Amino acid sequence: MTNKLNEISKWLKENDSEVCFITSPENVFYLSGFYSDPHERVLGLAIFQDAEPFLICPGMETNDARNAGWQYELIGYSDIEHPWELVHNAIVKRVKSISKIAIEKEHMNVERYEALTNLFPGSIFLSAEEKLRKLRMIKSKDEIATLRQACELADFAIQIGVEEISEGKSELAILAAIEYALKKKGVSQMSFSTMVLTGANAASPHGTPGPTTIKKGDLVLFDLGVIVDGYCSDITRTVAYGDISDQQYEIYNTVLKAQLAAVSMVKPGVTCSEIDLKARRTITDAGYGPYFPHRLGHGLGISIHEYPSITEKNSLPLEEGMVFTIEPGIYVPNVAGVRIEDDILVTSTGCETLTKFPKELQIIK
Amino acid sequence: MTNKLNEISKWLKENDSEVCFITSPENVFYLSGFYSDPHERVLGLAIFQDAEPFLICPGMETNDARNAGWQYELIGYSDIEHPWELVHNAIVKRVKSISKIAIEKEHMNVERYEALTNLFPGSIFLSAEEKLRKLRMIKSKDEIATLRQACELADFAIQIGVEEISEGKSELAILAAIEYALKKKGVSQMSFSTMVLTGANAASPHGTPGPTTIKKGDLVLFDLGVIVDGYCSDITRTVAYGDISDQQYEIYNTVLKAQLAAVSMVKPGVTCSEIDLKARRTITDAGYGPYFPHRLGHGLGISIHEYPSITEKNSLPLEEGMVFTIEPGIYVPNVAGVRIEDDILVTSTGCETLTKFPKELQIIK
Repeated sequence: MTNKLNEISKWLKENDSEVCFITSPENVFYLSGFYSDPHERVLGLAIFQDAEPFLICPGMETNDARNAGWQYELIGYSDIEHPWELVHNAIVKRVKSISKIAIEKEHMNVERYEALTNLFPGSIFLSAEEKLRKLRMIKSKDEIATLRQACELADFAIQIGVEEISEGKSELAILAAIEYALKKKGVSQMSFSTMVLTGANAASPHGTPGPTTIKKGDLVLFDLGVIVDGYCSDITRTVAYGDISDQQYEIYNTVLKAQLAAVSMVKPGVTCSEIDLKARRTITDAGYGPYFPHRLGHGLGISIHEYPSITEKNSLPLEEGMVFTIEPGIYVPNVAGVRIEDDILVTSTGCETLTKFPKELQIIK
Repeated sequence: MTNKLNEISKWLKENDSEVCFITSPENVFYLSGFYSDPHERVLGLAIFQDAEPFLICPGMETNDARNAGWQYELIGYSDIEHPWELVHNAIVKRVKSISKIAIEKEHMNVERYEALTNLFPGSIFLSAEEKLRKLRMIKSKDEIATLRQACELADFAIQIGVEEISEGKSELAILAAIEYALKKKGVSQMSFSTMVLTGANAASPHGTPGPTTIKKGDLVLFDLGVIVDGYCSDITRTVAYGDISDQQYEIYNTVLKAQLAAVSMVKPGVTCSEIDLKARRTITDAGYGPYFPHRLGHGLGISIHEYPSITEKNSLPLEEGMVFTIEPGIYVPNVAGVRIEDDILVTSTGCETLTKFPKELQIIK
């Protein structure tokens, strides 16, 4: 079995649980290599302490699951079969008595939970989510290679966006040009809704791109990411269109200084809290503390937000293989909105910045 | 209270349930007019038999909820408050003893269900989903007006796609051009991933757009939809690029004949089954029965797939105000994939086709 499946088996033993039944497309993908989101149909991966795992999916997807590399038992079902009965039979074939079932309590809905409760009356249900979040937090070599590609395409997207900037062009028109260029490169999915924000819109940490047009003296903020083979990148850059005010300069350079200071601290053993506070102090010392209202960053991988969370409260020490964003921002209403975000990989001795688009202020004339 | 909220109150009385707690963004939007998807944060709408309803959402969204027209009690909470306690207090303030709580069992996750079960020990939970699906099935005048706009933009998108067809252009490049044109018109969300499929790809009912390029003699299939103010449209058109074979013609005209025959039958009292079978018989009579592997259509509105389902098994009679797709298709591997889809509104005497792009075979030279 793969290391990931073995980790779950070990965890089941530690928790006296006979079986873990995983149902979220993200975690099924993480553990089996097979991505599918059959919506109202059942998709599930069962892992045991010692017995062989099995995967259940709609019959029309079994070929895809095999092609994705799943080598253990594979149960396909038709629309006239009852998948939960098949799940039950495959579980009791392996383990006679089930007392404790691990599930994803934040993913499984009540209807399915009732089906499972009826099949295994008297069983206790525990949540497997925390364990999976911790496993997913440390990326393998293959995962890092994929993230690297996703980050390269994010850099490319920013380049396109910057080239598109011109007088009177709308946020949505630039956004469309970016996604058009990515689609031509074969990218079919973004990590989240692409943000292109200018002027007053950029000064809100959660603005929405619209028909607002760019004018001289504006800052333009891009926040976007690309999904490659199931893994997300996430980058933010802010550039100036024409001459900007002294205060806008000051804000930009404060954010850049905070970002560089935080990145330079990253290495195994330093805590999430320490790097958040480093950036936060830089911004506070410059007098902009109240205008940095969010955490410094978040882990990313199969999900755009995963562990570790880079907050001032998180005392978790960094480990080699973690990948997360560092994205300080300052948002002063009607003055400027600036955020600079990179995707950072923790290495054995320090870190590598996976997104590489330049960060010195670019002034588009 | 609005008619929609009154309908839920009436249903609660019929089911001896004291409260309905709605948590899916779609149904909260349907019943309150306020759309929000705060992900892991709690969003909920509580409706009672006689007492005033209340809405609970993250504190930073309360202004949006008021602006969306919510006029009853509104509970905002901060990240350090426990929203489930607030829900509990607001419910018991209205009703002393709770024996039966209606929830969305397909939407609510186990973690939240456990929180609710702990707050109301001994209560029975029933599912409100079927009732909501039936309510949403009959569209109001306002909903129809919005769907009409979404359908107009879908027609526009097809027009753009058809104009983009030329030798050697890829599916993804055409797709990007369509979404670019829509974004410039202010459309920020598609109903689902836009499909542009050509040649062998179009001959699969669930192909994925990719780098495949268009060549003379190909059919090109567009399947797309646009979201306007929370409501989805959905259209499919298939056009020819250059001269196509006699069999491709025959397949196209069979699908068109089936589509027109089904649409012409639509009026109150006719069943979903009858219109599915009408189209299915037309295709079967032409010898293509095995190549039409899906239902004839689906309701649409806030969700892209909702009630009524237009299948050969559904004996539900049509009613004025229903909106659904009619989308027969024939997919013969390596020969042709053709689907023609309109959004249909049932009127008092018949129906209106909301999508209006021409359906006669267009041959792009």
